[in-house]
This record gives sequence, structure tokens and C-alpha cells, in this order.
Amino acid sequence: MTDENTGNGAQQTITESVLSAKDIDFLLYDWLKVDELCSRQRFSDHSRDVFDSVLSASEELAKEQFAPHARKSDLNEPTFDGTAVSLIPEIKSALDQFAGIGLLSSTMDESVGGIQLPQTVAKACFAWFQAANIATASYPMLTMANANLLLEYGTEDQIQKYALPELDGRFFGTMCLSEPDVGSSLGDVTTKAVPDPDGGDGAYRIHGTKMWISGGDHELSENIVHLVLARAEGDRPGTKGLSLFLVPKHLVNDDGSLGERNDVVLSGLNHKMGWRGTTNTLLNFGEGAHTPAGAAGAVGWLVGERGQGLACMFHMMNEARIGVGAGAVALGYHAYLDALRYARDRRQGRPDGAKGSDSPQIPISGHADIRRMLMASKSYVEGGLGLVLYAARLLDESETAETQAERDRAALLLDVLTPIVKTWPSVWCLKANDHAIQVLGGAGYTRDHDVEQLYRDNRLNPIHEGTHGIQAKDLLGRKVVMSGGEGLKVLLEQMRSTLAEAAGTSEWNDEAAALSAAVDRIESVTAAVWSRGDPEVVLENAWTYLEAVGHTVLAWLWLQQGMAAEEVVRDRGHSSFLRGKIATARYFFTHELPLTGPWFDLVESRSTTFSDLDESWL
Amino acid sequence: MTDENTGNGAQQTITESVLSAKDIDFLLYDWLKVDELCSRQRFSDHSRDVFDSVLSASEELAKEQFAPHARKSDLNEPTFDGTAVSLIPEIKSALDQFAGIGLLSSTMDESVGGIQLPQTVAKACFAWFQAANIATASYPMLTMANANLLLEYGTEDQIQKYALPELDGRFFGTMCLSEPDVGSSLGDVTTKAVPDPDGGDGAYRIHGTKMWISGGDHELSENIVHLVLARAEGDRPGTKGLSLFLVPKHLVNDDGSLGERNDVVLSGLNHKMGWRGTTNTLLNFGEGAHTPAGAAGAVGWLVGERGQGLACMFHMMNEARIGVGAGAVALGYHAYLDALRYARDRRQGRPDGAKGSDSPQIPISGHADIRRMLMASKSYVEGGLGLVLYAARLLDESETAETQAERDRAALLLDVLTPIVKTWPSVWCLKANDHAIQVLGGAGYTRDHDVEQLYRDNRLNPIHEGTHGIQAKDLLGRKVVMSGGEGLKVLLEQMRSTLAEAAGTSEWNDEAAALSAAVDRIESVTAAVWSRGDPEVVLENAWTYLEAVGHTVLAWLWLQQGMAAEEVVRDRGHSSFLRGKIATARYFFTHELPLTGPWFDLVESRSTTFSDLDESWL
Repeated sequence: MTDENTGNGAQQTITESVLSAKDIDFLLYDWLKVDELCSRQRFSDHSRDVFDSVLSASEELAKEQFAPHARKSDLNEPTFDGTAVSLIPEIKSALDQFAGIGLLSSTMDESVGGIQLPQTVAKACFAWFQAANIATASYPMLTMANANLLLEYGTEDQIQKYALPELDGRFFGTMCLSEPDVGSSLGDVTTKAVPDPDGGDGAYRIHGTKMWISGGDHELSENIVHLVLARAEGDRPGTKGLSLFLVPKHLVNDDGSLGERNDVVLSGLNHKMGWRGTTNTLLNFGEGAHTPAGAAGAVGWLVGERGQGLACMFHMMNEARIGVGAGAVALGYHAYLDALRYARDRRQGRPDGAKGSDSPQIPISGHADIRRMLMASKSYVEGGLGLVLYAARLLDESETAETQAERDRAALLLDVLTPIVKTWPSVWCLKANDHAIQVLGGAGYTRDHDVEQLYRDNRLNPIHEGTHGIQAKDLLGRKVVMSGGEGLKVLLEQMRSTLAEAAGTSEWNDEAAALSAAVDRIESVTAAVWSRGDPEVVLENAWTYLEAVGHTVLAWLWLQQGMAAEEVVRDRGHSSFLRGKIATARYFFTHELPLTGPWFDLVESRSTTFSDLDESWL
Repeated sequence: MTDENTGNGAQQTITESVLSAKDIDFLLYDWLKVDELCSRQRFSDHSRDVFDSVLSASEELAKEQFAPHARKSDLNEPTFDGTAVSLIPEIKSALDQFAGIGLLSSTMDESVGGIQLPQTVAKACFAWFQAANIATASYPMLTMANANLLLEYGTEDQIQKYALPELDGRFFGTMCLSEPDVGSSLGDVTTKAVPDPDGGDGAYRIHGTKMWISGGDHELSENIVHLVLARAEGDRPGTKGLSLFLVPKHLVNDDGSLGERNDVVLSGLNHKMGWRGTTNTLLNFGEGAHTPAGAAGAVGWLVGERGQGLACMFHMMNEARIGVGAGAVALGYHAYLDALRYARDRRQGRPDGAKGSDSPQIPISGHADIRRMLMASKSYVEGGLGLVLYAARLLDESETAETQAERDRAALLLDVLTPIVKTWPSVWCLKANDHAIQVLGGAGYTRDHDVEQLYRDNRLNPIHEGTHGIQAKDLLGRKVVMSGGEGLKVLLEQMRSTLAEAAGTSEWNDEAAALSAAVDRIESVTAAVWSRGDPEVVLENAWTYLEAVGHTVLAWLWLQQGMAAEEVVRDRGHSSFLRGKIATARYFFTHELPLTGPWFDLVESRSTTFSDLDESWL
């Protein structure tokens, strides 16, 4: 029974691990060979030792400064007194330390003070913070994505005044897309930007209301840099008329000091099921509360080209989608480890064969049904972490591979996989959270245990940065057919190249045969669906297609993990960890991949159940 | 953005329906022919008019007195000041009205003041309260089950002093099984009962601690009647040494007035993810806080035979398991209706074929992916309600059918189905809650909408009254093999008799063929699994077996619902409701039943993945 104000009941797990350092080591080095990146120009100052020291520092900071206030910030949501938003002080303290060791610019160029780490390593580091406390971790996640976008598309002035202070942790960032009546349909954005002739080059005044803005207001940083999607006066309707604007909470003077308060005003806080430590806001732009000198409206500056707002935003969004996948993995992983610890500790019942109460009770990890849930969860969270890091490795390849052709190929494959990287963990790692509650039973349903909060926190991931439905349309409607089907072709080739490797070993014959059949089905089912040209019919079962392709991709990556584990066994001998890795790879093939059968069948049938439906029948 | 103290943001849905009266009508009369029960002796005073008036009264009371404080009681949990537990006043007011119209004894004999309603009608009535406010509804649910048990096994004195005041709503009841270290393994109960020679016949003193006791303390009723599972001094270990004891909060004098305070003391409140309006408690018995005159310990009386405690408790437990299934359906149903209303109202995006932003946005119910979630949810909640009412109909048959053979057969079939009635809605109707959040998107993840709370509330149902794992073992390890396999035989016969009916129509050929194949698989897979005698091996995949049999049972009942709908069409013509019913039945066959293929395959393979696992691999 938790002390409701401090969340002390949950502190029992603070020093417990929230992710597996051993698994991260295996994935980064034994499977993805991240140390080989050090031979590339960009990473030539680095070594495995450097990577390891940043990973350790992240683990330590996450456990010591992020995890301890996770429950407290859940129980003490942000409050707004009409002037300022208050958060528990532990959040700022943790974030100051995060910035202090340079993690905000871990992947950025050394020229802007960055560490120039590979994305693969940086994503693994950040996963520690997501697992420890996703709500507190959301502030740097948004800030890094925001700064990244400005470094790519911003003017020198925007970079100096706004992006660099973000990398120092002095300013935080947001992304402002949604409006009260505009969620998934961004083409309908109504926020307006009016050119401000007195404001100099690229200056506009912004008017409108943005909804669901995470980190939209707080006192954690000196300033907040909003990146706002709006339509410049006179521009065309739809997504092609949208531009991106930098709209700071406080203007910044030429000497870098804070200037006037801008007309961005908090109109209300949203109260969510989870992520309660992240302020989530309704923001008014240009309603007249703090108008800086000059015309009415919030002061903003165009970022990138006019009419290219959505394209710029997608630079941030694609990164955010991988981040959402990683967050979903991290929350599931933490819950899996909690459930595993509990199952080993909690004694209840006897083996199914034993009758009577004379024999001692056994830890519940001995019961088949508990093992089923733990094994399934392990396959989801370790598979999910593999997926996310594989995607990050592709990002590194797309930026640093030797030849342009290799870079293009990696970028294309990443593009195809992005909807899966966002969605698969949001579905299946959330199931690990669900299993974790079930393993703890009644205890898992109380606020005394982290698994309760982790389940609520992870329920957001299927929604933000594009719902499942949006990702499914992206995959089937765009990604697998883009560039004349080149994206799908690259994916199938990569999968078949793993199958060719597996053919060289005797251990994975059954798995390779099953995967080969599923890969063939991706090819034939995609062709069958697209043989009807009407997009409405094609996309009818897009979600089921995403499920089927997603599970097949995971089987493919599990085969790679399994083969990598066998290779380590041959090099360095066996261990429980490696036996577990191999058993989990095999589990995925016996228990998970077969589920794709009916999914592929349904998509191939081109069922029109939903379009045939009359709404009055529901 | 909700007013956090009143939950006013959620009040928008108060007057909206939380269940479908039209669907209940269809299920009760057009499918289950409940009005035919009026020809039986027990129900001969009743008519459809009587049933309808109790159903209407339930709907009205649920909407007007239960639904309005559902969010408020979620936001204002019970508090304990060391003396008394405080709840928001709306709970007592609602419960007094519930008792006032006689609903606490709706199924009980007229001789004890009951209405003698069929169980089928009573369960439908109660579903309104579960859908409106499961936390408030839990008090009468427990009280009715408690009183029922006393009427069955209690002495005349226990009935007069405790059961009848429960039926009047003056006393409330609990069931006290779990202990801090005893959850699923009831044979390990440590609470002790010592005979009290000064207390008269059947008097004991009780010592121990009970955990997770819902309704364990409050000021809602004059008294609380605890039914406590304990081991009488000297009795054997294991479940066969357990007896059941009536332990009231206040003793009752012979004239019916309240006597001494008994030694049952609240030790703490649990803080759950949902059901926050239900006090959930840790209770100490006989720790010396309020010892009534005489020996130490809480005063208790044996209920039923010594050593028959678990058997008596299962009388209550089986009813409670059907109640849990009904609750899971009700929470999912409410969420489905909320999602449907939202989807019809919320305009976002355009049809998949339409490009550009010139055309008006459409309600999201026009998008295939939203329809997919709504249709799936409809199939789960209407199917689940059908399952629960079918089970209740069997209960009526088991008590009132003309011949003993018919009664026995109904009881046997109900026994086999009980783990499915408890589990299937807890899995699939919870999925309807998940879909409802997804349909609402970001809004669904906030505490402004009922769907957020309904999802948290429904997450308890997979846990209490026996987890999924316990139900799965009950089905495969006990129910399908009991009485020499008679239980399974009856189930298969019933399913095949529906298939024979379907063969007489042309509309359901495809569905009947698919169901027939699945029924055959239940038979062959069960035989294959049991061909190995070792229970540990047999039960390894019990959960997947439960999933597969559960989905097949639902397909069977959907076929019945579909055929019943066609019959109504022939009699009274078509309607949107009937078209929807038929479309949903067909959906279940095209989209849901095929999922059982890989489940049956896995069970049939007798995979030993989990028992082969070494724990150190996890």
C-alpha cells in the first residue's frame, strides 16, 4: 500500500534494472557489430570503450535520477496556477544532469559540441531513460528532435539563437502539429501565419490553437522553442500549403539574452491515463495576451521553404516514430524484468502433477502458464529492442556507408520499416506490460508496483506520432509501392539474404523454411492486393497486412539474433544468456510466426467486410 | 479537461446509453426465448411484461443513479481515517435505491421476499449496473452472492440474522478467500478457526489475515457479513481441511438488533488501477482490537459442513465467475457504444480514394480502420453478452427444466462453459475497451472520456475470481474430462445440433462448414493432448486450448444469433439492427474463427517449450 504522495511503495524497484545491459551488449556488438562503425570517418575518434562508457553513464543516471521519481510524478501531476506550470523538482534535477553529461547532443556533429555517436549507440543509451521514466525522458526526446530539425533546415541565426541553447539544455523544444479539430488529417490545419514586414526576413505573425502539445509549457528550461505547422496567408489548402515556423516562448536578443515574452499562452493542461509527468497542453498562439511590439500575433520565423512544412516536420516525425517504438520497447522491457523478478520470488502452488499440500510451494516461475507469459514477453521486448536498434543501424548506414548506393539502400529499407518500428512494439510490447500485470496478479493491478504504471504509460504509444491505422496505410499504401516497388524489393532481398546465410547452418532449417514461406507470402499477398487498383479496396485490410508483415519481420530479426547467438557460442562457449536467446528465437517460430497464417489469408481474400458495411448496422 | 473533483468533463455521457436495450430484447426473447420460461411452475406468475418492467427500471436506475458518479468515485477513492472508511455519498444513495426496488433479491424465492425472476432476466438487469458503474455495482454483487450461499448452506439462525438483512440491503456481504501469501493456491490458507465451547453450536474464534477483500469495510450498510475460508484447528492441510465461517463485523442479537463489535479490523486499503470506488482491503481477524466477551479471536460460525468450505465457496464462486464475465462484457459494451457515438460525430479526413482538402471531411466511422475496430468490438461485446445470457439460461434450465435429465445436462454444460464465460469476455471485451481508446485517439487517452476509465476498470477482470491460467487448467484439466468426458460430449453435441439446424437453411452454409471443422478439432485435439497422461505435459498449453475452444464457442453462439436474426427477418421484416446482427455474425466467421487454426495446431503439437525451459534462460 503505497504512500500516495511519494510513491514510496514503488521504490523497492529503484535499484533494480529496468533494461538488460547484457542484452544491449549482445545486440550492439555480437549482432549489429556496431564497433565496426569506428572504421568510418565520422566515428573514427570512437571505440567500443567510448560506447561502453556512455552506455554505463546512461544506465547509472537513468537508474539513479530518472527511475526514483517515476511513480512520484505519476501521483503528482503538473499543476497550473494561471501563471506558471509546477512540476515536482526531481524532473528538472534529472534533466539538468542529463544535459550536463552531454547526452542532448550525443549524435550531433562535434562542430556544434556533439559527441558524434552512432545513432545505434545513442538509441540504446536513450532506451535506459525511456525504461526508467518515459515521462521525464520525453522532454529531452522532443528537444533533441527539435534541435535536429533546426540544424537541418534552420538559418544560421535560428541555429545560434535557438538550436544551440537546446543542445545545452537551456531551452527545450516542442512539435506543434495537432489542433482541437485536426489530428490525423494534417492537411486541414487552420493555424495561420501572416507575413510581418516589420520583422525582417522570414518573419510572420502566428494565429491559432494547437492541441496535445507535450512539453508545451513548464519552468524546466529558460525558454521553449515551438515548431509550429501553419498555413501562410494565401497559400493553398491541403498539406502542400503548410509551412513550418519557429515560435519561441521568449524572443531571443541578438546577444543571446532573453527578450520579450511572445504571445504563446497555455490555455489548459490535459489529464492523461499515463505519462503524467509530461505536461500536455492546449496552446493559444497570437490571442493577444503578450503581444510583442508590432503587429498582432505570436512572432514566428519560417523554417525551411514555404510550403515545405510537412516535409520538414517529417524529418522530425520519422525520428520521433522510431523513438515511439523504442519507448514502447523500453516500457515493456522494464515490466518484463519486474515480472521475472516477481515470478522467481513469489512462491505459490505446486507442479501440476503434485497433489496435496505437503510439498513446499514453488516459485511461480515454475508454472507453465507463467513461463508462457514470460517467454512471450521476452520474445516481444528483446525482439522489439532488436528491431529498434536494427532501424538505428540503418540510420547510421544511410548517413555513413561507404557508397551512395549503400546509403540509398539503407535509407530505403529504413523507410519501409518505419511504420513497423513505430507500430509493432506499440502492440506487442504493450502485451508484455499486460502479461506483467497478469504475472503479478492482484498485486500487479495496484499502484504499489511499477507494472501498473508501465501499462498505463505504454497505452499512449499506439496513438501518438500517427496511430496504428495511419501507419498501416503508410506501409501498404505508400512504402511497399514507392519507387515502383523498390522499397518492398529491398526488404525481401534482405530477408532472403538472411535465409541464404541460415542455409549454411544446420541448426535453423525449420525456422528458415517457415520464414521463407512467410516471405513468399508477403510478396504474393502484396501483389494480390494491389492487383485491384482502387485505393479504398486496397487499404481495407491494411492493418492486418501490417500485423502480418510486422510479425514476419520480427521472425526474420529473431533468426538473425539466434544465428548471432550460435556464433558467440562457437567463439566463446555457452551461457544461460545465450541459451535463453536461442530458445526465445525458436519460441518466436513455434508460437508467434504461425499466427501470420490467418492474417495473410484475410488480406489475400481482399475481404470487403468494412467497406460493404452500412453505418446504420453498427 | 476535466474538473478533477467532480469528473464533470465525463458527464457528457451520463444520459447516453451504456448498453443496448434493443440487443438485450433480441437476445432474451428472439434468441433465448426467455418468455417461454413463464410456463414453468417457478415463473408462472411472470410474463414478458413483468420482465420488461424490471429491465426498464434497471436501465433507468443505472443511467440516473449509477453512471453519474462513476468518474467521481474514480477520482475520489475511499479514505480511511483510522476509524471509518469514507466514500462519496452518491454510492450509498444509489445502493439504497437499488435495494429499494427489490433488486437484491430479484432471483430469490418469494418465501424470502424475492421476485423469483429467471436468472437470465436478472443477469441482463444487472448488466446495466455493471456497465454504468462497476465499482458501485460490486457491493450488491457480493452481497447477493453471499446471501445466496447462506440461503443454500446456512442455518435458519444464520439466514434470519444475516441473509435476510442482506436481501433488504441493511447488511452487505464479502467473500474472504485470499491471504497475503495465498492467492491461487487456496489449499495453503493459514487463517485458523478454534472451536468456542462457550459460543454454542458451530461457534468458533477466527484468527488470521485476509487480503484483497472487496467491500471489506465501509459505512454503506449497518453491518458487513464476511464469509471466511479458514482451517479449523486440527483439520488436515490442503483444500479438504478448509471450512467456511460467517464472521460479521457486528454480532447480531436474537431480536435482530446489532450487538457487540466483532474483532474484524481494517488494516489497510489497496490502491488499484481501476474499480476505485470499491473499497479493497486487508482485514485482520482476531488480533485483539475489539474482542467480544469470551475467548480471544473474532467470533464466527461454521457454514455448511466442516471440511466442505471450498465446495460451499464454489457455490458462490461459480456465480461470481459468471458475474465477472458479465462485468467484462458490460465494461466493453459501454466503451463500444461510446466509441461508436464518437466515430459518428468526429469528422476527420476523407475517403482513401479522395485527394486534396477541397471535399468536406467525413465522420471517422467512414474509415475502414475505424470500422474494423468497431465491428470487431461489436462482435466481442454482443457475442460476450450472448455468452453470458446463454450461461444464465443454462442456470435456469438446471434449476427448472421439466426432467431431472434435462436439469443435469444443463448443469453439466454450464460447468464446462464456466471457465470460458469467465475468461473469454475478460480477454476480448477488454480488447473492445482498447479499441474504444484507439477510436477516440488522443482524446480517448485522457480522463475526459469514459473510455479511459472503462479500460482501467476492465483490466481487473482477467485477474479476480481465478486468473486466466487457473481457468485454463480448469477447462482442460478438469471440465472436459470430468465424468468420463461427459462434459465435453455434451458441449460437442449441443454444437452439432446447431449445425444440424443450420443445414436446414441455405444462408449459413459457409459458416456451418467452418464451425463444423472447428468442432471436430476440439474433439481431436482434446483426445491428442490427453493421449499423454502426464498432467504437467497435458496442461502445458492449456491457455491456448482455452483460447481456441473459447473462440469456437463464440462462433457457435454467433451462428445461433445469426439464425435467430434471420428468423425475425422472416417473421417481422428487416431492420438496420437485424442487418447489423447478421453482418456481425458473418464477420466473426471471416475474421475471428480462422484465428483458431494456429492455436489448435500448437495445442495438438504438444509443444513442451515451457516445461523444457531452464529458468536461468529467462
